[in-house]
Amino acid sequence: MKEFELIQKLIATLPSNQSVLTGAGDDCAVLDLGVPDRVLLFKADAVVEGFHFTRDQQPALVGRKALARCLSDIAAMAGTPNSALVTLGLPEDYSSDWVLGAYAGMTELAQRYGVAIVGGETTTNPGRVLLSISMLGWASRGKAILRSGAQPGDALFVTGELGGSLSAKHLTFNPRLEEGRWLAEHFLVRGMIDLSDGLAGDLRHVLNASGTGAELLASAIPISREAKVAARAVGDSGRSALVRALTDGEDFELLFCVPGSQAVALMDAWRGRFKLRLSCIGRISEETDIVVRDKQGAHLLTSHGYTHFS
Amino acid sequence: MKEFELIQKLIATLPSNQSVLTGAGDDCAVLDLGVPDRVLLFKADAVVEGFHFTRDQQPALVGRKALARCLSDIAAMAGTPNSALVTLGLPEDYSSDWVLGAYAGMTELAQRYGVAIVGGETTTNPGRVLLSISMLGWASRGKAILRSGAQPGDALFVTGELGGSLSAKHLTFNPRLEEGRWLAEHFLVRGMIDLSDGLAGDLRHVLNASGTGAELLASAIPISREAKVAARAVGDSGRSALVRALTDGEDFELLFCVPGSQAVALMDAWRGRFKLRLSCIGRISEETDIVVRDKQGAHLLTSHGYTHFS
Repeated sequence: MKEFELIQKLIATLPSNQSVLTGAGDDCAVLDLGVPDRVLLFKADAVVEGFHFTRDQQPALVGRKALARCLSDIAAMAGTPNSALVTLGLPEDYSSDWVLGAYAGMTELAQRYGVAIVGGETTTNPGRVLLSISMLGWASRGKAILRSGAQPGDALFVTGELGGSLSAKHLTFNPRLEEGRWLAEHFLVRGMIDLSDGLAGDLRHVLNASGTGAELLASAIPISREAKVAARAVGDSGRSALVRALTDGEDFELLFCVPGSQAVALMDAWRGRFKLRLSCIGRISEETDIVVRDKQGAHLLTSHGYTHFS
Repeated sequence: MKEFELIQKLIATLPSNQSVLTGAGDDCAVLDLGVPDRVLLFKADAVVEGFHFTRDQQPALVGRKALARCLSDIAAMAGTPNSALVTLGLPEDYSSDWVLGAYAGMTELAQRYGVAIVGGETTTNPGRVLLSISMLGWASRGKAILRSGAQPGDALFVTGELGGSLSAKHLTFNPRLEEGRWLAEHFLVRGMIDLSDGLAGDLRHVLNASGTGAELLASAIPISREAKVAARAVGDSGRSALVRALTDGEDFELLFCVPGSQAVALMDAWRGRFKLRLSCIGRISEETDIVVRDKQGAHLLTSHGYTHFS
């Protein structure tokens, strides 16, 4: 959309001040408030009926998803969430049961992560519910991981399995908060992002911010069971399970880089610490393209799929 | 609306944590982040097309208003704004000129107050624009002024003039940031709020939070020229200029109390410091009603007007 590209340009001209370490364009803004050992993370995000959820879905899961999306952004900075504000745009025909349910879902998830909900504004939004969350969190000073910083030769990792999230996981995913912090504490993590648009699109954000490209191994991409089932259901004419894993979006897993020299140690330490799958899916390259390699050769990846080129 | 009352009840059950000094229900949340001399203010607010603005109004003024509303909430805590996030819900038929204009209005006002805009998310909201702002600010530790704290005998003050804001002022008002801080620095200010719903409704918030009532002098209410003009235009059958001043809303002036013993000193010091009008409009009482006194006697004030009772 034209407006969305426009806003990317606008972002570069937004006013700043001396407390801003990282402004618009990363998973969260990073602010220096003068606390010696920590920096503040600041994020806002909205879910909209008909786009991010539907009216027949459980309100508790909708509230949960809205909060979890912000938590996932905090995770992608290796941060710890602290507090949240809720802004609820409501059509006039919405029931109090729906509102109660949405708050119950937010409250349950917030309590699990020690997050305070410190405000609940409402406004009228005829036609559809819009649920906007603002969140504050902390990161250790010098340990807030940005999208930029990926360097040629870095090993590229992704947590969990990708694709088919809209069949269920997008409402029930667990933000990778513990994993994000552990990674930043123990390894030289750089170029981290959470996967909301899909690996192809979100990897592009990291590469643009870092001025690099990437080479992926098709056989190393962790494809979810849901993506495989969906690909089989539509047969050969539909999108393959791999394309679904690369482009479906709403996975909310972490994508990140470490220096190639740390890759083996990371895989070993991860297995000793987490049950969650971790996959090394490729490496950062000097060229700015994203190349996917499989048995047939090399393909160029775009946000919608990939095309054979050599 | 039933949902809105419901959310007031929900607010009491929201999760908290050890950093929360004041949660939902005041102009801003107040957080203790361990900075020795300061506390953090955290606020979110949204404006919606068709309710807070119309499509034919200048986009720069709409963006300005959205940001100014949050600044007014920071002012009502005697705070200093620091940074803001923008979440813009856009119908598909909105032009890039509108978006550019709205950001220009936000940027100009933000720069005037040293506010950084550290993020600009967009999402789809078919049918109407919804512009949500999240804001962070500082208050001196012990000087963030809450709605609670009004005590019987306190003198009740209001800045500026009230009523008729929708004819123009709601798009161009200046948040009373300097005034709010000056008041908290020099006087024992308590029970402060910014006037968004109208004096009658917002005074009720202060009184409910403080467990008190108030007596107002009708002749002391500062009525704006716009309210007087509007009252004359409709003749005797319409709402009087006083009722407009008490109930119109969107004035974004400050309403606050000081101990009765400080009232005269405050008026004197204010006149030496600000050109803006300051009015002592009454006093806080032990009974929880709001009583308006005029030549005809005493009247009970509700959020819609007042009724003679004695």
